[in-house]
Amino acid sequence: MPRTTDPDELIAAARAGDRPALARLLSIVERGGPPARAVGVRTHPLGGEAVTVGLTGAPGAGKSTLTSALVSVLRSKGERVGVLAIDPSSPFTGGAILGDRVRMGDHVLDEGVFIRSMATRGHLGGLALATPEAVRVLDAVGYPWVLLETVGVGQVEVEIAGAADTTVVVVNPGWGDAVQAAKAGLMEIADVFVINKADRGGVDATRRDLEQMLELSDDQGWRPPIVATDATTGTGVEDLMAAVSDHRRFADDSGLAAERRAARVAGELQQIMAEQVAQRAREASSGDRFAEACAAVAAHEVDPWSAAEALLAGDGDR
Amino acid sequence: MPRTTDPDELIAAARAGDRPALARLLSIVERGGPPARAVGVRTHPLGGEAVTVGLTGAPGAGKSTLTSALVSVLRSKGERVGVLAIDPSSPFTGGAILGDRVRMGDHVLDEGVFIRSMATRGHLGGLALATPEAVRVLDAVGYPWVLLETVGVGQVEVEIAGAADTTVVVVNPGWGDAVQAAKAGLMEIADVFVINKADRGGVDATRRDLEQMLELSDDQGWRPPIVATDATTGTGVEDLMAAVSDHRRFADDSGLAAERRAARVAGELQQIMAEQVAQRAREASSGDRFAEACAAVAAHEVDPWSAAEALLAGDGDR
Repeated sequence: MPRTTDPDELIAAARAGDRPALARLLSIVERGGPPARAVGVRTHPLGGEAVTVGLTGAPGAGKSTLTSALVSVLRSKGERVGVLAIDPSSPFTGGAILGDRVRMGDHVLDEGVFIRSMATRGHLGGLALATPEAVRVLDAVGYPWVLLETVGVGQVEVEIAGAADTTVVVVNPGWGDAVQAAKAGLMEIADVFVINKADRGGVDATRRDLEQMLELSDDQGWRPPIVATDATTGTGVEDLMAAVSDHRRFADDSGLAAERRAARVAGELQQIMAEQVAQRAREASSGDRFAEACAAVAAHEVDPWSAAEALLAGDGDR
Repeated sequence: MPRTTDPDELIAAARAGDRPALARLLSIVERGGPPARAVGVRTHPLGGEAVTVGLTGAPGAGKSTLTSALVSVLRSKGERVGVLAIDPSSPFTGGAILGDRVRMGDHVLDEGVFIRSMATRGHLGGLALATPEAVRVLDAVGYPWVLLETVGVGQVEVEIAGAADTTVVVVNPGWGDAVQAAKAGLMEIADVFVINKADRGGVDATRRDLEQMLELSDDQGWRPPIVATDATTGTGVEDLMAAVSDHRRFADDSGLAAERRAARVAGELQQIMAEQVAQRAREASSGDRFAEACAAVAAHEVDPWSAAEALLAGDGDR
């Protein structure tokens, strides 16, 4: 395929299984701006609604290994899966040791799996906007399951995981890990808890900690189950998948899924509007018309509010 | 005077010497929004251009005492002076010990002086916008000299002081104070340095530190003089006033004053535009039209970018 940047060609190619075309689409979406919009406008009607599962937790909790194990379970059911890794410590994003990296390689040759690391580049606002668009791209080209792996530290990362259809919070056994998760705001977004590295012992104490904290929170009809796993051996991963499926069923039946979907759409619309108006203000803040307006204000011929309004309105007329 | 909030009445009253009316105008400006704009539109053509002197430095450097001493010098020349204190540690804003507070009281009964503390309330963006408007109000009602006292810590505070016609950076004698000032970004904005509390000794070492740092910076035709003062006794304050006057003359002759004024106008216009578009995005983010747009996006009838644009445009039509 030629190095096209035409969104229609790229989408058609990606839908036909061209992985470099899909990678290019995700890069466009990640960079934002008008090209990202051109992609979004086209993928929006193509997708149904991808099923998103967020996996979050402290660095080193084993989120990537668990993600990889979940991919295996989904593949064994014939599901095609996309993975978006938003975690600087993830092996997907190149932050982990070689052993991990090799393990993640299990799925590299499987064309039913597409793994993508989203670069944060210190521009998290952009990431919050780019993630739903990346999900939409994956959905539109045939990956209706999307796993979102984010590090459970930082507001944007926690929000991205929390905006998934089902959010899995990963902790490790050991005194205090549950408390740390609570401090990071993870109790509120958890639909399922995983105590990973269960082979280490101390699982019961951590389970008690989590249960105690759950007592304190509103359950709204769903009490997050607590699943013990050992992701490196696969122990408990089927149980985790069952818990995710249970939550999906509950969410569909109770209206929670529709509610979350509506909240996601509203949040995305608000963010797009904020970005659009900021862009408008930036454009109106330079050039000849801006210089003329400054001169008029300095000469007291016009007040700054009227001048600002005229600049913004003039920009809208173009 | 009745408790009017009509801007025309308040401005007329304040111009006639009604101090509560002036205080109310400044409160309106500080709160922002459409009432602030109504005041700004009216005061903008009334003022000439106030002469602003920024005083900044670390907490406890003696900025308030120095401000008070400068007020005395200006009053002895018959000038009417406004003071805006944007400094949580300032006695003007209620942050200092009783002794300081009594000293500042020197000017409380002088109707040629108007002192106002600007509350930061954790909303510094608003403060950056409110300060030039507050200067404009003071100017319009007969205080053409305005001293801006800000703590030399924090980006907004440093920017506010740096946007004055003449910026005075206050340090104390003693090893390291000049270095701290440099770290806070104060070297770049200083037009005049004051070594206050000069009675303490160590003035020469601090002067050498400052001179060394000045060697490293572009002087652009003006080398900031270094004045030693003891503000509590008034020693050196006439010298400071002379240095400020020298800088004003230089700035007028070299075009620097016009340049700064133009930069201030441009910065204010940009901030007003940013505020106006943010307001527009907030307004478009709720209500029936927003709910309808969300439903249409969720149903894939419209893509989120087109929906956002329609919401913003519709809002502009009102």
